[in-house]
Amino acid sequence: MNITTLPRVVALGGGHGLAASLTALRRVTDQLTAVVTVADDGGSSGRLRREFNCLPPGDLRMALAALCSDDHAGRTWASVLQSRFTGDGPLAGHAIGNLLIAGLWQQFEDPVQGLDMVGDLLRTRGRVLPMSSVPLEIEADVLGLDPFAPDEVCTLSGQATVAKTRAEVQRVRLVPDQPPARPEAVDAIMSADAVVLGPGSWFTSVIPHLLVPELAEAIVTTRAQRILVLNITSAAETDGFTASRHIELLAEHAPKLRLDVVIADTRFTADDEHIEGYVQSLGGRLVRADIASRDGSSTHDRHRLASVFSEVITG
Amino acid sequence: MNITTLPRVVALGGGHGLAASLTALRRVTDQLTAVVTVADDGGSSGRLRREFNCLPPGDLRMALAALCSDDHAGRTWASVLQSRFTGDGPLAGHAIGNLLIAGLWQQFEDPVQGLDMVGDLLRTRGRVLPMSSVPLEIEADVLGLDPFAPDEVCTLSGQATVAKTRAEVQRVRLVPDQPPARPEAVDAIMSADAVVLGPGSWFTSVIPHLLVPELAEAIVTTRAQRILVLNITSAAETDGFTASRHIELLAEHAPKLRLDVVIADTRFTADDEHIEGYVQSLGGRLVRADIASRDGSSTHDRHRLASVFSEVITG
Repeated sequence: MNITTLPRVVALGGGHGLAASLTALRRVTDQLTAVVTVADDGGSSGRLRREFNCLPPGDLRMALAALCSDDHAGRTWASVLQSRFTGDGPLAGHAIGNLLIAGLWQQFEDPVQGLDMVGDLLRTRGRVLPMSSVPLEIEADVLGLDPFAPDEVCTLSGQATVAKTRAEVQRVRLVPDQPPARPEAVDAIMSADAVVLGPGSWFTSVIPHLLVPELAEAIVTTRAQRILVLNITSAAETDGFTASRHIELLAEHAPKLRLDVVIADTRFTADDEHIEGYVQSLGGRLVRADIASRDGSSTHDRHRLASVFSEVITG
Repeated sequence: MNITTLPRVVALGGGHGLAASLTALRRVTDQLTAVVTVADDGGSSGRLRREFNCLPPGDLRMALAALCSDDHAGRTWASVLQSRFTGDGPLAGHAIGNLLIAGLWQQFEDPVQGLDMVGDLLRTRGRVLPMSSVPLEIEADVLGLDPFAPDEVCTLSGQATVAKTRAEVQRVRLVPDQPPARPEAVDAIMSADAVVLGPGSWFTSVIPHLLVPELAEAIVTTRAQRILVLNITSAAETDGFTASRHIELLAEHAPKLRLDVVIADTRFTADDEHIEGYVQSLGGRLVRADIASRDGSSTHDRHRLASVFSEVITG
């Protein structure tokens, strides 16, 4: 394959799910753009956004590390930026990369400039963009928060809170509710050969992109192949949800969404008799494959996911 | 001049004084090693050493920035690493570079490995080494701390305290008092063509090197030219001291010290009738030159200092 023919791929997501898709996709192409959620309010990212009113850097840092060069310098820097200060002092728990990114953001008005500098440092294969230039909050309607009023819908605020709740999430919103997309992200989607949604925390890493109007519009109108990667199991935010329900949730949050391919693990979808119908109703075809890690961690095996991406994207 | 004939120069010091000698020396050679004090306990460095029991990174960071490449990437990164977090939160006042260096030190057992990585990032002309691998304290005997007992000698502890005192410093010590030198620093001094002491805060940045036994021994026995650069004026720690007294203080702290050249600003030494004698008693010759900045800041003009270094070192 000639370098000029490598497909242009945009991966949307956040956290470990996005890192998984990027780690697999970098084996398929180096024309890669990650578009990353900026709603995290927990941990090191949450502390930084509260201290500096900046974007939460953690998901961006993780995406950069996932794209770091395979050479010694790239891997060494990635491992340093992913590491965290230890102990119990004022810096404890902060990821080194989060501090570096927040420092760069203090210096340069445009957050993408700082991310590009870290990308150069890690010699990344591809580029990492925030989905919006403004920090966002996630708000969720949940059912069953109060065991004595199981049918009552309550509102939870904050990504960390939503991600941890044991109540059933029904719908999420962004605050502010019409955030501007990064124009580079819109451009990347519009000129891509393939756009990949998921895997990841469904309500806090996958759906948020569909709630940024310009991103949703770009995903709907791009001529790129639209690929959805389902999780290996339902867990945490979507505990007990079928694969079908995962797809239905996307449609509920983005009624105009069409999909070309849905990649699902064989085992997760084995008993899900409705899934073919859901996928077809969004215009797509279902690709079932054995893509779960062998270590029982409910994560994707990077090599097998890469192999499926390669078949789906480059045929 | 061919690159293979560039002189190997070691500059010893700390803080802004070392940054001044490095900024001038980099115009003379790229075979440059900075050997940096590690006794700072104030500001961002002090907070980091208290939180992590690490070396104070600030003087090392400043030396790295002084040696950064003239290209865009080198200068941009240097400016980022020199910048500090603003505001009044837990990170406020920390230099970004200090946090990055402290983070690297958490990852690698050898602090020099982290410094070399930052050197690569800034594409430094030369290498920056700590004078010891262990964090040090400075202790000073001072006179006149108590205005009601002006002849009483008291002990002050901590570089930040010593640097700020209005009492007259008479002698400084390191705690622990026989700290191990970095072997790379000893090697660099032994194989150098020139070794440069000063300018800088006399008690807290210049004299400390002479109190590390292996460094003092190397400075005394090396075949390199030994060059002392005096400050532009006496200020802060040595407020009111003559140039002669500055030289005498070195001899008091390191009785075996010999010097080949003492570089002094013409104006600072104009009325100092004893200075020739002091310089000669240490075996050296005095080079007087107009090397003060024109901005009245009591700092060296980098171009004129470079010109004197060039004459003295490369003839």
